[in-house]
Amino acid sequence: MRQPESIEKLINRFTRLGGVGYKTAQRYAYKIVEMSDEEAAEFVGAINDVKKNVRYCDECGGFSETPVCDICRLRDKSVVCVVAQPKDVAAVEKCSFHGVYHVLHGTLSPLDGRGADDIRIKQLLKRLDGVKEVIIATNPDVEGEATAMYIAKLLKPLGVKVTRPAQGISMGSDIEYADEVTLSRAIDMRTEL
Amino acid sequence: MRQPESIEKLINRFTRLGGVGYKTAQRYAYKIVEMSDEEAAEFVGAINDVKKNVRYCDECGGFSETPVCDICRLRDKSVVCVVAQPKDVAAVEKCSFHGVYHVLHGTLSPLDGRGADDIRIKQLLKRLDGVKEVIIATNPDVEGEATAMYIAKLLKPLGVKVTRPAQGISMGSDIEYADEVTLSRAIDMRTEL
Repeated sequence: MRQPESIEKLINRFTRLGGVGYKTAQRYAYKIVEMSDEEAAEFVGAINDVKKNVRYCDECGGFSETPVCDICRLRDKSVVCVVAQPKDVAAVEKCSFHGVYHVLHGTLSPLDGRGADDIRIKQLLKRLDGVKEVIIATNPDVEGEATAMYIAKLLKPLGVKVTRPAQGISMGSDIEYADEVTLSRAIDMRTEL
Repeated sequence: MRQPESIEKLINRFTRLGGVGYKTAQRYAYKIVEMSDEEAAEFVGAINDVKKNVRYCDECGGFSETPVCDICRLRDKSVVCVVAQPKDVAAVEKCSFHGVYHVLHGTLSPLDGRGADDIRIKQLLKRLDGVKEVIIATNPDVEGEATAMYIAKLLKPLGVKVTRPAQGISMGSDIEYADEVTLSRAIDMRTEL
């Protein structure tokens, strides 16, 4: 006999969060069942608040609760870091970067039919007033590299410095286990001590 | 600069589901942000439904959406499987058990000040009419064993057969890696082929 249907339904919902199997989803659902009503209401409230309040910043396209996000309002606009997804902003924010962002909402992908007009490249070109440097922090994979090259070609004639985060061996990792593409790249880009 | 506060709050809520670290909670929260409003509403609805509909069965103490659960209403009451927590019912349900359950809602634990009156032992004694066998499926740890012993001592004088699931080496595991207590128990309880 199955467990109560509303528990089954909640388990099913949890499995849609991505990377959550049935057993884990079941554990989360039981946790909800055992929560106090207040705690569950706060959980529901937190989800509702995110759906109600979080939007994309009109300027950078990152997550924001206001038409223009705090980062765009308060920080140095002479350096722009271009990322593919809004969640990449949180990753770069952990570093000592003090400029602003531009979120493309995707990368160029001819195979998926995603061209330059489908990601926020035009909006980037409109923001270049006073910009000295554009750091293109898309992923170091085929699509991310292609997108970076494409944007670099557009920006360089406009006299903007275009850079890309260095690629090489991760800190704390082992040369023995580095894949050959990464290691070749790291040797090509070697720096003088 | 931090990400929008409502996202931070939702991440914090997800970390309370147990066994969810910050990075995982962040992943779930971003998934919620990127969900359609309808999908998020259904997720919220599933949580609300669980809180509204799920209660404990008046007879067995397991999860139910009705005063008496389907298992208690429809199944053979001559065999009762005693478990510590409502969620243990779902685990036993995966086996070919066709009797009913009795959920103790805890185990005896003198150290935590939990005695026989704090778990549903009295309610078990009231359900013994027509019961031929009680299987005590509490965990094979100190508290679970003590609870099983205690209940067995109460039930045996009443002429009820009291059993406990066999303990031994897990299926598919390796004798080499079995801990010594488990292996000793498995050898003590060896069966003839």
